[in-house]
Amino acid sequence: MNGESPSPCKMTDVLITDIGQLVTNDESRGGLLGIMDGAAIAIDSGDIRWVGPEDDVPHEYRSYDTLRADGGVVLPGFVDAHTHAVFAGDRSHEFAMRLEGATYEQIQVAGGGIYSTVRATREASLDELVDESLPRIARMLASGTTTIEVKTGYGLDIATEVKMLDAIDRIRDVLAVDTIPTFLGGHVVAPEFLDDRGSYVDLVGGAMMDAVAGRVAYVDVFCDDAAFTVGETRLIAHAAQARSLDVRLHVDQLSHTGGAALAAELGAVAADHLDHSTDEDLVALAEVGTVAVLLPGVSYTMREPAPDGRRVWDAGVTVAIATDCNPGTSYIETMPFIISMAAVNCGLTPDESVWAATRGGALALGLHDRGVVAPGKVADLVVLDAPTHEHLTYRPDGDLVALVIKRGNVLS
Amino acid sequence: MNGESPSPCKMTDVLITDIGQLVTNDESRGGLLGIMDGAAIAIDSGDIRWVGPEDDVPHEYRSYDTLRADGGVVLPGFVDAHTHAVFAGDRSHEFAMRLEGATYEQIQVAGGGIYSTVRATREASLDELVDESLPRIARMLASGTTTIEVKTGYGLDIATEVKMLDAIDRIRDVLAVDTIPTFLGGHVVAPEFLDDRGSYVDLVGGAMMDAVAGRVAYVDVFCDDAAFTVGETRLIAHAAQARSLDVRLHVDQLSHTGGAALAAELGAVAADHLDHSTDEDLVALAEVGTVAVLLPGVSYTMREPAPDGRRVWDAGVTVAIATDCNPGTSYIETMPFIISMAAVNCGLTPDESVWAATRGGALALGLHDRGVVAPGKVADLVVLDAPTHEHLTYRPDGDLVALVIKRGNVLS
Repeated sequence: MNGESPSPCKMTDVLITDIGQLVTNDESRGGLLGIMDGAAIAIDSGDIRWVGPEDDVPHEYRSYDTLRADGGVVLPGFVDAHTHAVFAGDRSHEFAMRLEGATYEQIQVAGGGIYSTVRATREASLDELVDESLPRIARMLASGTTTIEVKTGYGLDIATEVKMLDAIDRIRDVLAVDTIPTFLGGHVVAPEFLDDRGSYVDLVGGAMMDAVAGRVAYVDVFCDDAAFTVGETRLIAHAAQARSLDVRLHVDQLSHTGGAALAAELGAVAADHLDHSTDEDLVALAEVGTVAVLLPGVSYTMREPAPDGRRVWDAGVTVAIATDCNPGTSYIETMPFIISMAAVNCGLTPDESVWAATRGGALALGLHDRGVVAPGKVADLVVLDAPTHEHLTYRPDGDLVALVIKRGNVLS
Repeated sequence: MNGESPSPCKMTDVLITDIGQLVTNDESRGGLLGIMDGAAIAIDSGDIRWVGPEDDVPHEYRSYDTLRADGGVVLPGFVDAHTHAVFAGDRSHEFAMRLEGATYEQIQVAGGGIYSTVRATREASLDELVDESLPRIARMLASGTTTIEVKTGYGLDIATEVKMLDAIDRIRDVLAVDTIPTFLGGHVVAPEFLDDRGSYVDLVGGAMMDAVAGRVAYVDVFCDDAAFTVGETRLIAHAAQARSLDVRLHVDQLSHTGGAALAAELGAVAADHLDHSTDEDLVALAEVGTVAVLLPGVSYTMREPAPDGRRVWDAGVTVAIATDCNPGTSYIETMPFIISMAAVNCGLTPDESVWAATRGGALALGLHDRGVVAPGKVADLVVLDAPTHEHLTYRPDGDLVALVIKRGNVLS
């Protein structure tokens, strides 16, 4: 049920056996997914120590506690590289209004839109913000997401942006999940600055960034028609880079504004959305090595055409997929649903969808220690109650995740 | 987790309190959904006895065991009026092949397609068929579906069609869920009769129907290009009506063959799919009172445009929505996901989607004793961990069902 926190069951040394199909994402084992049949995995102190045929388990791992996968699939834990999962307030009615044909203006007048989340998040105490957000992140973890990027950006003032980081830290500690915090002061212009955008850009790239710089892994900017121009985005990104912070950007979601090209220019770690990016943009991203993070849940929710994952993949860009969990345009928590949509709606193959949700997600966060099942990697794993990973795409509401293993601990 | 059977916790007399929002589907209470705030429900011997403001609970119900809804939504249990949830075999790889561009012919050559399910279902023992199918129906029940239509149609010979009915009965008894069995010998022409369709139609409308007639609620025929012509469908339907069996039909899914018009001509209880039906067809269905059962999961899975629920509703046709759970074109088990797609993809409002999944589903099965929260109705209810029913459409992978109540028993 929603809202329950999985409790970690501490296991130090574990040998996983009876694996029906192991997705390693280790290309040296063949194919994109490096699939092994009849494999076993030895885990020790939260890391993977050994991967190989179950018949060949070395002597030193045979005394480990055994965890049987019951013939199911084992794959790397999902990495959700784009979420806004910490927020306060309820926007379900705004969603219903939009389905019934309400315009953007009517929704604003009714008190909806992103500023309603900003208002609710500002008004919430830290405890309230944690209470509202923790069940979402607990659900993500329970559904197999073992690393979760979480953005600020519903504060748009220093105190609330810092409060959001406090909430992210608190939730990380309670759930023992890896959260990767991203500063998104550049989400939209704060309501107080609508007549003075330049001052808000200065604040984001100045005092606000100083207040969070030691606590975040990334700086993100929503570069699009309704948010920041390419020029404004460049200013904020340069402020980040001057502080040795890596950049990731929301680009080309609503229209082609040149955001993807800017991401390439900046050498951003990731460029997200890309719905309206051109073939030239994709070539530029591929050349720089910026990871494309595709967000099919937004297209579903907003009744827009899904991002063309096939085109992005074929352009040679590294592809990740993510939930974009947020209260306005994608109240979606689980990566299996995103994996299904990436295949069904975005044109990726089932193999590519699974890769993009694991290895792709890790690369989009610059993490090379996970997303692969190999010795030395973090023991973040998912066990499916299904005979093949193709069931993730085949059964969009399948609830196939039987076990989640986070740094060697089996969650239940 | 998938595959666990909910166990009923026997409660005879129950008073449900602390309901945040009650969806009654009782038009006398106002609006399509007859929503009440601050209501309570008294249940006795599996039936609803009283519904009213919590402050006004009559004395005789105050001693009942209290079940608190914790401020969540209470609504009628979902009624899934179109499923093929009993089958054997695995077709995930066929799905993956199709995503990767395989043609119908390539899938057939690879051993896929509906005949592969027929082969697996024929080969399975009754125990095996139950073992494979029960987890699906358990999952449906756990996700709030309290009445489930289940079709035969993967036997296409007398022995296997009867075995499918045996499996449906066994699962009904184990899970204490209401299954409504439908005879679908007219699913496709049995492989042995591909060169002699007429004899197969005679068999379905003759000896095969005689073998099942006492055990089924409905006779269904797949009237479409890949299955049975309007003429063949009419023969089978007349054979059903001659045995006093009501008819429901698969119509106009793949193309406009006149199936919807035939459903109206026959006075069918339901006409399902309707993707290619004309406005004239819809007028005819509305006049006769045939319920339209829309199946957005098929469109999702097959990457086809979703059925235009808005057009069907506005034509005055009674609308139900259902999973069409089957291994080929919609491996979907949960009504909340269907409710989301009905609103997002089919143009129904959130209110209409919820109504179509409850009251609409009941009417599509000719059941007037459920789908409404009112005295005298069956106490099939769902409690959501959400403040409004709009969350069902707002959060497509939300897992919002906190409690399922089947005939007054709280499942857990």
